[in-house]
Amino acid sequence: MPLAIPSEMTHGQEADLFVLMTAKEELTTRDGKPYYKVGFRDHAREVTFPIWHDSPWGADCREAWQPGSFYKLRAIYRDTTYGPQLELRKIREVCSADSADGFSPAMCLPQTRFDAKVLFDELLAMAREQIFDKALCALVVDLLETNREALLTLPAATHNHHAFVGGWVEHVHSVTRTSVYLADKYDDYYPDMKPRLNKGLVVAGAILHDIGKLREIEERPQGAEYTAAGNLIGHILQGRDIVREAAIGRQLDPEMLLRLEHIIVAHQRLPEWGSPKPPMTPEALLVHYADDIDAKYHMMATILRDDTNTGPVTSKKNVLYQKIYRGEQ
Amino acid sequence: MPLAIPSEMTHGQEADLFVLMTAKEELTTRDGKPYYKVGFRDHAREVTFPIWHDSPWGADCREAWQPGSFYKLRAIYRDTTYGPQLELRKIREVCSADSADGFSPAMCLPQTRFDAKVLFDELLAMAREQIFDKALCALVVDLLETNREALLTLPAATHNHHAFVGGWVEHVHSVTRTSVYLADKYDDYYPDMKPRLNKGLVVAGAILHDIGKLREIEERPQGAEYTAAGNLIGHILQGRDIVREAAIGRQLDPEMLLRLEHIIVAHQRLPEWGSPKPPMTPEALLVHYADDIDAKYHMMATILRDDTNTGPVTSKKNVLYQKIYRGEQ
Amino acid sequence: MPLAIPSEMTHGQEADLFVLMTAKEELTTRDGKPYYKVGFRDHAREVTFPIWHDSPWGADCREAWQPGSFYKLRAIYRDTTYGPQLELRKIREVCSADSADGFSPAMCLPQTRFDAKVLFDELLAMAREQIFDKALCALVVDLLETNREALLTLPAATHNHHAFVGGWVEHVHSVTRTSVYLADKYDDYYPDMKPRLNKGLVVAGAILHDIGKLREIEERPQGAEYTAAGNLIGHILQGRDIVREAAIGRQLDPEMLLRLEHIIVAHQRLPEWGSPKPPMTPEALLVHYADDIDAKYHMMATILRDDTNTGPVTSKKNVLYQKIYRGEQ
Amino acid sequence: MPLAIPSEMTHGQEADLFVLMTAKEELTTRDGKPYYKVGFRDHAREVTFPIWHDSPWGADCREAWQPGSFYKLRAIYRDTTYGPQLELRKIREVCSADSADGFSPAMCLPQTRFDAKVLFDELLAMAREQIFDKALCALVVDLLETNREALLTLPAATHNHHAFVGGWVEHVHSVTRTSVYLADKYDDYYPDMKPRLNKGLVVAGAILHDIGKLREIEERPQGAEYTAAGNLIGHILQGRDIVREAAIGRQLDPEMLLRLEHIIVAHQRLPEWGSPKPPMTPEALLVHYADDIDAKYHMMATILRDDTNTGPVTSKKNVLYQKIYRGEQ
Amino acid sequence: MPLAIPSEMTHGQEADLFVLMTAKEELTTRDGKPYYKVGFRDHAREVTFPIWHDSPWGADCREAWQPGSFYKLRAIYRDTTYGPQLELRKIREVCSADSADGFSPAMCLPQTRFDAKVLFDELLAMAREQIFDKALCALVVDLLETNREALLTLPAATHNHHAFVGGWVEHVHSVTRTSVYLADKYDDYYPDMKPRLNKGLVVAGAILHDIGKLREIEERPQGAEYTAAGNLIGHILQGRDIVREAAIGRQLDPEMLLRLEHIIVAHQRLPEWGSPKPPMTPEALLVHYADDIDAKYHMMATILRDDTNTGPVTSKKNVLYQKIYRGEQ
Amino acid sequence: MPLAIPSEMTHGQEADLFVLMTAKEELTTRDGKPYYKVGFRDHAREVTFPIWHDSPWGADCREAWQPGSFYKLRAIYRDTTYGPQLELRKIREVCSADSADGFSPAMCLPQTRFDAKVLFDELLAMAREQIFDKALCALVVDLLETNREALLTLPAATHNHHAFVGGWVEHVHSVTRTSVYLADKYDDYYPDMKPRLNKGLVVAGAILHDIGKLREIEERPQGAEYTAAGNLIGHILQGRDIVREAAIGRQLDPEMLLRLEHIIVAHQRLPEWGSPKPPMTPEALLVHYADDIDAKYHMMATILRDDTNTGPVTSKKNVLYQKIYRGEQ
Repeated sequence: MPLAIPSEMTHGQEADLFVLMTAKEELTTRDGKPYYKVGFRDHAREVTFPIWHDSPWGADCREAWQPGSFYKLRAIYRDTTYGPQLELRKIREVCSADSADGFSPAMCLPQTRFDAKVLFDELLAMAREQIFDKALCALVVDLLETNREALLTLPAATHNHHAFVGGWVEHVHSVTRTSVYLADKYDDYYPDMKPRLNKGLVVAGAILHDIGKLREIEERPQGAEYTAAGNLIGHILQGRDIVREAAIGRQLDPEMLLRLEHIIVAHQRLPEWGSPKPPMTPEALLVHYADDIDAKYHMMATILRDDTNTGPVTSKKNVLYQKIYRGEQ
Repeated sequence: MPLAIPSEMTHGQEADLFVLMTAKEELTTRDGKPYYKVGFRDHAREVTFPIWHDSPWGADCREAWQPGSFYKLRAIYRDTTYGPQLELRKIREVCSADSADGFSPAMCLPQTRFDAKVLFDELLAMAREQIFDKALCALVVDLLETNREALLTLPAATHNHHAFVGGWVEHVHSVTRTSVYLADKYDDYYPDMKPRLNKGLVVAGAILHDIGKLREIEERPQGAEYTAAGNLIGHILQGRDIVREAAIGRQLDPEMLLRLEHIIVAHQRLPEWGSPKPPMTPEALLVHYADDIDAKYHMMATILRDDTNTGPVTSKKNVLYQKIYRGEQ
Repeated sequence: MPLAIPSEMTHGQEADLFVLMTAKEELTTRDGKPYYKVGFRDHAREVTFPIWHDSPWGADCREAWQPGSFYKLRAIYRDTTYGPQLELRKIREVCSADSADGFSPAMCLPQTRFDAKVLFDELLAMAREQIFDKALCALVVDLLETNREALLTLPAATHNHHAFVGGWVEHVHSVTRTSVYLADKYDDYYPDMKPRLNKGLVVAGAILHDIGKLREIEERPQGAEYTAAGNLIGHILQGRDIVREAAIGRQLDPEMLLRLEHIIVAHQRLPEWGSPKPPMTPEALLVHYADDIDAKYHMMATILRDDTNTGPVTSKKNVLYQKIYRGEQ
Repeated sequence: MPLAIPSEMTHGQEADLFVLMTAKEELTTRDGKPYYKVGFRDHAREVTFPIWHDSPWGADCREAWQPGSFYKLRAIYRDTTYGPQLELRKIREVCSADSADGFSPAMCLPQTRFDAKVLFDELLAMAREQIFDKALCALVVDLLETNREALLTLPAATHNHHAFVGGWVEHVHSVTRTSVYLADKYDDYYPDMKPRLNKGLVVAGAILHDIGKLREIEERPQGAEYTAAGNLIGHILQGRDIVREAAIGRQLDPEMLLRLEHIIVAHQRLPEWGSPKPPMTPEALLVHYADDIDAKYHMMATILRDDTNTGPVTSKKNVLYQKIYRGEQ
Repeated sequence: MPLAIPSEMTHGQEADLFVLMTAKEELTTRDGKPYYKVGFRDHAREVTFPIWHDSPWGADCREAWQPGSFYKLRAIYRDTTYGPQLELRKIREVCSADSADGFSPAMCLPQTRFDAKVLFDELLAMAREQIFDKALCALVVDLLETNREALLTLPAATHNHHAFVGGWVEHVHSVTRTSVYLADKYDDYYPDMKPRLNKGLVVAGAILHDIGKLREIEERPQGAEYTAAGNLIGHILQGRDIVREAAIGRQLDPEMLLRLEHIIVAHQRLPEWGSPKPPMTPEALLVHYADDIDAKYHMMATILRDDTNTGPVTSKKNVLYQKIYRGEQ
Repeated sequence: MPLAIPSEMTHGQEADLFVLMTAKEELTTRDGKPYYKVGFRDHAREVTFPIWHDSPWGADCREAWQPGSFYKLRAIYRDTTYGPQLELRKIREVCSADSADGFSPAMCLPQTRFDAKVLFDELLAMAREQIFDKALCALVVDLLETNREALLTLPAATHNHHAFVGGWVEHVHSVTRTSVYLADKYDDYYPDMKPRLNKGLVVAGAILHDIGKLREIEERPQGAEYTAAGNLIGHILQGRDIVREAAIGRQLDPEMLLRLEHIIVAHQRLPEWGSPKPPMTPEALLVHYADDIDAKYHMMATILRDDTNTGPVTSKKNVLYQKIYRGEQ
């Protein structure tokens, strides 16, 4: 049986599939018939359907299947009036031998549309080229390199925006690019500002503004979750910790370090948005805006992509809590 | 007697000066001695000092001098413990012949550090090159050209930010440049967004977002003031009027016009910031951010320039209602 | 078979009916039985019931029936434990010949309890008699007469208050009456106010405060919806547009026009309620209150009518987000 | 020497005056010259001027004169560049014999422009005619009659609105009139509301909504002040007390009493405006609006009367914290 | 058949039970099968299950069973995949003879873990020993004794916190203890405060701060509900009424009474939390805090007990609207 | 000449004094007479008076005297109508020999009424006795001992509350005592809470909740000021840093450390009050309340002490922005 990519299957097609189990919920119809609502996904599509208790898969589903585990299925795909469905023929957990057939967990998770490694390398290049202070540059580069593996897959959030594999690097790369643009521009406009805008600091702040996500978020197959410290302390304080720990033993100017910490602390601008201090330096102001634009634009683009309302405006039920205008099309 | 520029005079220097009278307030000391507190300014410095009722200038000051009028003075400049002072020798109102000596009203008003004409021409060029829809391009270009004289001197606000001669063109030029950057970037990131980002619309919206200032603000020698309609209606609605009036008789796509109006209506984002509708299109979102960054950065730079606090932080009493960190210097 | 009015039918009665189809939603029971949930209404009652896929009407329902279309039914009405139900015998779309039997679309929509034409004529009379400035009076009268047909059926909102056929004229008529009362009263109390209260302006503002609904709301059989411009611009700005367009070419005093525009702009009082400017004139203040009372009283009366809670207070789940006290009855 | 009314004197006029002393503040000029700033007023004008320590009146002023006392002065009135001034010739405290010359304390206090007794009698008449429930009518009438003397002079507030002698009766009379209008109107609009609007209750609530001012405010010559209970409890709760105490021993329907109390409790609508509960009955809603309009209109009229800004808009520094538009005049 | 306590029954056990009926709701499955969802509870567990219309109990359920009534059941208890269920064998309403078998209504309601009588007596003792002013002490003691029966069972709220039988006395006892501690402590810290802290007043205020619940809440078998006056007036104002009524005819110092009333009025601190006045005396401040801590701690403990989330944090859906951290266990 | 304590001097007394210079501001009277407004203080009183430029001390004042320096004066104290004044006879800066006469800087600064060393030792004792976890106890004890000198004099704030020498230890000692009380009490009430309340953690959190003040505030003779990091980062984050740094190399349970950090992070409860996270554990909740009561009670007591309003209520112009009721006295 040929291997297929679930999100590319068509009505009636039978194939072998690698999927992640995302849900198993025990429910009952109102008149008492029990079933499991199960979900399986690849990187782009999630399929949900019932396994009746008295069906051939009922006992197996109850006892063995685990959300968060990966499975190899043989199934027939159907587009039905109840949405896409899979009619199971075989199911077993993925084993190490499956990598030979091309299986990797990442193929079952939503992820950045970009090549995370390319973005990461460009981020490193920006750090190396645009942060002129040597000690500061080294701090940023070392932090990136030390955490390379984790940062390549880290999402930028558990929901809201860039909540997918590689979301951190996609978002941070974009924020840093905008920050470079704004720093060049405004330094040019206000060359006499005292103290003068420190472009290297803007770049360092942009790259590290969300570094605390490393400790706030735990990646799990079912989706990212907050760590205990993420819940009790939050990524802003944890990001500052990472920077302070990395600064120990370096020849970093203390005033520079303080300003860098402030960029992280202030990047969400208002207390009710999570920042204990508002941007009090021009560098912090620029990073805040570069970050905010990128997050909000991503949200708007995602709403336009996913909203299912017909008509010229989307529903209000989205992460921005407002209608978006799509227009007559 | 040589002509001097007031803001460049030094202690003890005597010279002839062209100035604008900015204040004449009748006061009395606590023990009953009456005087006028008068103010005179050139483009960069304002000097305030008393004219005692019983001094040689007392009667003239009371009867003839008018704030808002321009004067030619002969005076000695002194730096005193009470701030800069002018000791008057002669004073008369400016007459038409003074232009021969280089007098122009603009030399007595605070103004943009840039060449307003150059900025204006660059703005026109951006309109011509980056707004691809012909009707939309023509609308924007015509509006700029029709109002060229007024827009070259219009301030961007009566206070808050860019509140000086040429402030409008300085601010709008900057907002438009950032908008071009953001539009190019985000169209590149989300090429499949439906509908796709309309860059020309972003540019048109950026150029026209504050066009209502033409009707909201009245330039007067003593400083800009709100018009009656500025008070009762406001520049957001008036800016939309200007665009709608200019659109009459053109072949502008109605959906395009609606989206352009929306950018103007939504550019301050929240109701309490003045926008009856939040940005509901990606184009409006980008213009909002480009505008907000430029205003806030200008405020911060101005606070850093003007704050007189000693120590590493400024006072809280400024247009941002917060301390700005200047650092140890 | 005799024609019946659906909202007046009784248990077991069989009759022919004219109805509007309001809903057709494809659903499935938890154990997989598919059906359509359909809805039909006349002016006062909506009936919702299932059409099973495998019933005689299943195919017809799926392929032909359209929400928003009008139908002639033959059906038996039943009060059941699942609410009112219709057992269909026949169904066909309404045709032009049905008007001979008394069909009109309006008979299937919720509407004002008053005679809209009477209200409209009284509104016109108030305009003619109480707006003393000739140009202003002509502007208002012309606007009413030009839009007579639309205004006779326009709802005052898509939901919230007066959201039914003729809601606009019912609401505006009431607001204008209260405004006349308040203007007379307060002019009498403060005869020396400078400038004196302009009663004609109050009346004009009251009549036109919601005129923008003409462009904000689109009437459709299934209920009113926002137009694209309604979403992106809103009725306050659009109402001002209508007035400004109508003023072109008239001899209307510009100060008078400005004050009229301000009444429209400010009639919702606070930015978060939709007004970019607060009432800054006595005229605008009075119209705001007359409008607000009428809307809130209508909401309260409607909640008291529709709430199904037993006991002395209603639920909090209503347009006022609070409990209303009904008392022991 | 003839008696004059201070607010009608003209420059250079010498006369005898009855006045209230409103201020005596010990100050010193910056160079150390001590003086008292004293104030005297009649019902319409307040004059403030210095009494130098070393002047003939210095010792007397220090030892004897008391703000809050009434004085008979002989003085010359002068309009000066420092505002209106009195040049004292004689001063003595008012004595009982002065009533023979027409002195009464009320002539020195700001007061209602209306005849308080007429308003009061009309209020009584409204109570008698429009409150149909006998027990309720008797309660209201008795409360008015019992407190007649105090209510004839009570201000409606210590500042904000109607803060003058007779302010309570002026304001309550107006609120009651509007309430009658609204009750008649809306009962007519919603005759089927359940329970039906109780007009008598609206009238009773309107008359008594501010009855708590009797205990909240203490009238003093220098102006009204809050009582201890006014500060700690407030007029809303105290007004309800007055009603509850008056209801003891009457045959008032408990549900009626409860609804009346609720009108008082809810008449300021929002917690942050002072009401612990929002209007939860139609009667409370109407009284709230009738009250709010009257207060806000009074504020706006007073601002238009007193604001000293030149130009078309008033200052923002007033009880409404916003500009009012006066227009070009 | 032996009597069992429902919340202690185990799978398969058959027994006789005394229960309170808490719910009877008529529902239908999506495919049209009608049933009643019924609920029965004892003091610690509620069981909900369907009675099908066509089952042997269908008719009886429809016609006779009443939520709020007590029943004696014979039933088999089962833990099923649909939660706990009862299979009915017999059912009849409780009769007076059942008390002989140990039935009391309280055994079917959630209640305080403490002995309410002991708490009540301790509260009385605190009043007698710590309120030094005799008249004040007598007022408090009399109020407690007069309402002893009601206060022994009154809940502290209908939901939010201490919403169970005896909740009032549990909460008030705890608040009073903390208030005694704080009063002793802060009087010791600020012995020179003028006026000095009145500890007796703190204790009286603590005991009476929620006395208004007597009139705000009505205990019913199905759970506490707001009275009409509770809805329209609220417990803060009603509690002050109780105190004022009780003070009539006593020799209580009026200033003392006023300060006591203020403690009640201000104990929720902010208008939006229900207090028309903020704490303006040290006594009111202490009672506010003692009350607030006790309520919030109870909420947090209850959330930790009841939340069913797995993992280290609870859900946000609770009375505090936030996550609580439970930790890894 | 005998040494006197400035705040105990009486009218006409001449003596030698040790004082701190607190202010030197160059001013001019309105008619142009220049002077310095100088201020001197001891621990309880500040005296402000003019030094005229042309007086014998004029030149010395201008050139030599420095706010923040300590001086020995010989002066005559006078109570005048312009407040307390000093007539200088001699002035010189304090020298090392003055300690022999009893001079110490602390005698010139406002300070705690308590013996800071006693409070500190009691705090240490509470730490040793009530924190049962050895590693946690050691961490707290070491932090106290290491910073003993600084903590003995640190104020708790630059203004708001406990803004004087020793304010930190006075406040923290009090907060810890209340926390011990609350922890004992609520652990007793909810012994089954899971996880059980950790009293030692409450005590540790109470002692360390404001430890960040060590880095936020800089003590200077003229009064405490924010450090650069205090402005940009704030004491909450800095306090957590101190704890984390101290935990390095200890055997502290990571979960315990995390919960301790959370207490510090959450102790101000709301974002707008400075806490990025709300209290999410029972321990954090108790410390928040113990802290908040102590701060607010101190504010209220201080307002009652310092307010100069006559009458039963204080002014609103204080750190609580509300009136405090003092009562008739």
